[in-house]
Amino acid sequence: MRTYTTAKDLGNLEQAVQEALSIKRNRFAFKHLGENKTCLMVFFNNSLRTRLSTQKAAMNLGMNTIVLDVNQGAWKLETERGVIMDGDKSEHLLEAIPVMGQFCDIIGVRSFARFESKKFDYEETILNQFIKYSGRPVFSMESATVHPLQAFADLITIEEYKKTKRPKVVMTWAPHPKALPQAVPNSFADFMNEADVDFVIAQPKGYELDEKFVRNAKVTYNQDEALEGADFVYAKNWSAYKDPNYGQILSKDMSWTVDTKKMALTNNAYFMHCLPVRRNMIVTDDVIESAQSLVIPEAGNREISAQVVIKRMLESL
Amino acid sequence: MRTYTTAKDLGNLEQAVQEALSIKRNRFAFKHLGENKTCLMVFFNNSLRTRLSTQKAAMNLGMNTIVLDVNQGAWKLETERGVIMDGDKSEHLLEAIPVMGQFCDIIGVRSFARFESKKFDYEETILNQFIKYSGRPVFSMESATVHPLQAFADLITIEEYKKTKRPKVVMTWAPHPKALPQAVPNSFADFMNEADVDFVIAQPKGYELDEKFVRNAKVTYNQDEALEGADFVYAKNWSAYKDPNYGQILSKDMSWTVDTKKMALTNNAYFMHCLPVRRNMIVTDDVIESAQSLVIPEAGNREISAQVVIKRMLESL
Amino acid sequence: MRTYTTAKDLGNLEQAVQEALSIKRNRFAFKHLGENKTCLMVFFNNSLRTRLSTQKAAMNLGMNTIVLDVNQGAWKLETERGVIMDGDKSEHLLEAIPVMGQFCDIIGVRSFARFESKKFDYEETILNQFIKYSGRPVFSMESATVHPLQAFADLITIEEYKKTKRPKVVMTWAPHPKALPQAVPNSFADFMNEADVDFVIAQPKGYELDEKFVRNAKVTYNQDEALEGADFVYAKNWSAYKDPNYGQILSKDMSWTVDTKKMALTNNAYFMHCLPVRRNMIVTDDVIESAQSLVIPEAGNREISAQVVIKRMLESL
Repeated sequence: MRTYTTAKDLGNLEQAVQEALSIKRNRFAFKHLGENKTCLMVFFNNSLRTRLSTQKAAMNLGMNTIVLDVNQGAWKLETERGVIMDGDKSEHLLEAIPVMGQFCDIIGVRSFARFESKKFDYEETILNQFIKYSGRPVFSMESATVHPLQAFADLITIEEYKKTKRPKVVMTWAPHPKALPQAVPNSFADFMNEADVDFVIAQPKGYELDEKFVRNAKVTYNQDEALEGADFVYAKNWSAYKDPNYGQILSKDMSWTVDTKKMALTNNAYFMHCLPVRRNMIVTDDVIESAQSLVIPEAGNREISAQVVIKRMLESL
Repeated sequence: MRTYTTAKDLGNLEQAVQEALSIKRNRFAFKHLGENKTCLMVFFNNSLRTRLSTQKAAMNLGMNTIVLDVNQGAWKLETERGVIMDGDKSEHLLEAIPVMGQFCDIIGVRSFARFESKKFDYEETILNQFIKYSGRPVFSMESATVHPLQAFADLITIEEYKKTKRPKVVMTWAPHPKALPQAVPNSFADFMNEADVDFVIAQPKGYELDEKFVRNAKVTYNQDEALEGADFVYAKNWSAYKDPNYGQILSKDMSWTVDTKKMALTNNAYFMHCLPVRRNMIVTDDVIESAQSLVIPEAGNREISAQVVIKRMLESL
Repeated sequence: MRTYTTAKDLGNLEQAVQEALSIKRNRFAFKHLGENKTCLMVFFNNSLRTRLSTQKAAMNLGMNTIVLDVNQGAWKLETERGVIMDGDKSEHLLEAIPVMGQFCDIIGVRSFARFESKKFDYEETILNQFIKYSGRPVFSMESATVHPLQAFADLITIEEYKKTKRPKVVMTWAPHPKALPQAVPNSFADFMNEADVDFVIAQPKGYELDEKFVRNAKVTYNQDEALEGADFVYAKNWSAYKDPNYGQILSKDMSWTVDTKKMALTNNAYFMHCLPVRRNMIVTDDVIESAQSLVIPEAGNREISAQVVIKRMLESL
């Protein structure tokens, strides 16, 4: 595997999940693969789960890891070509990226949507420059429009907890004080569309996601209706995708917060969220602390999803 | 060992010191113990010695290490339950802690007193949430009220340098420009009270420490009297513990600075300090640079104390 | 090797280059040397290449690595003796340095010129305190006046790409928006003067470097003349060295920018730069992206130069 940004990159998804579950039972079985290999993790944005889980996954595989916080230990990077660099940016990505590639074997990149230009974000400009110029296999650790390590971990979690062959999975928008990217819902939709689930997206009007990710999912503006009979409730906030409101907050409607009344509409559903989560905005204390909440094992599976991806990249070196 | 916050956690203290001295002679003897194990070090506050010595100790034991600077590479964490999280805190400790626990085997936590609430500090709210929710053995890397890795290193140092079976050890307050927590003097008192030493605390009026730590120590307001015949002088600043002055500076009396005149009162005592130290406030250049100053080997023993603690936690997994 | 700051520290330079090329062919051949050894990298200033390449080099040699960002994860350090430390600096270098030495076997230090005092900078005050007080072998990861890991990597690169026994190497000043130290040109001159090359320095008037580094190099104020017949063009900005203008910008003359016209004067020269580089100030997009640009393999050799240095230090332990 040379890049990891979508469900498709994993090939047969059922097989990838089985590989994940097998790795989960024996995390150190492939430690020889990473010997003398270095995984570089480049963060343009903050991170908790991804930082820890990806390091852990790479170390499980016997790799050395280097964490680079751009803008903290390093410096600001220019991204446009042709600029006379007389400002505060000391280096161009066109040099920085191949240089980073010199000192590692695999690169993970975190680079959030900036909301300055939908085109810049949806072309995955930063991530794609790494893919194009680093000379190394590159995986997204949440980039402008996708978070495929999260979505793969979500799928593994659903596989572990589902009680029926084809569970009903509802991804519902929920309110949040700050404008958030669409990366998590995009990738979750991408994966659910490839998985054997009955997938529904519930959201207020104006929050329609990119068709590229929504594909054949059922979409509704009625959260209650969506939750009926749900086996998994996947809550998430995102900002508007559609023009002219890209990156904007259109609603903070607290009636979309997932509480015990909402959960009572479901088929005793499990509650999922990628974290970090704003309590009592996205979900109430009661629900997230309930026995049906999967947020911690779901986070735990981030180590496993990262390990499958890095393992496959190591195998392709 | 599942938690490490007090001298008592080490069981027989004499035996723990002997284990430390044995490890110091052969630091890599237990490297197999840490294979495929990860030590996570979580810093809510800055650190030099603890950061380096604990990493070194974990690596001596063959562990992988992950350092997490909360508020730098990660984000601000909410600590109160029931809050509608619509402010600048992106995640609740109640999620963040069990998530951290997913990606490691042992956790060290640095979290200083905040001086906003004596109750919040002395209940060790942050550290105890890690103990309660992480699912992992947890050790304090200086928390609100204790610094047991430091105190254990201090005890090891006294053991190495003492010339009599039961040395006189004087912990003396000294002036400092900023209000400091009581963590170091608390833990030093805790350990000295369990050790075979003649323990005296000298401080200006108002600086009385928590009885829980002081126990049967001799306490005096006369520094000169205390220093007479001392074998070890342990200087340290702390802010007031007693209400209504909790966390406040009551004195910057420079006559408490440890200088050569003060040291002349002692039994050619060794000078100790946990570092970092404000020179010419706590202690003069002359004294800290003298042959009797143990500050560097004392710091060096931080690696050893951490290694004993982590080793015992590894053995209990 | 106990210190690494100059070309001379490497002894026979030709031999050092051969050792480098041999290591480059088999980077993991000396992995046993670093077992149970720790390389501490102390950054007082930001870094990208040095941070990554030095970690990689130490890991290639089987070492553990610890990265310390002073002022970020740690705190501000006092550097003057005799000061009453009642300000914002929590610790004195005279304690901090030997403490750091306790927890590692080899130390790399990055500490840029401050431009507050030429004497302070050119005495390499910070670096020399590490050499004097750490008790460990110390190498410069760019200090106030030298960057010998860079210059050694440059020499290795010239050795790899040269087409004649004694190539003409031109180091030319180029414009830059901010005042930069002389560390890179100083060390490059130091190394070129010891190597078998025809070495020329081109710079505007007032930009003369320290004689200690310039030695017998040809120096000219005419860039075009210098470039004639050049086999390697090494572009770099630096601020004035000579009094009373130390650390100042005397020119931003864009006619010194290395563009295709300038390169046309040469013997189809290779273009070199240590990076980070300001595009269209130091060099145009066209030249840095041309087939003759060596900036990426040159950066890649940073891993190799660091590995030779650390290997030799390990051998001397």
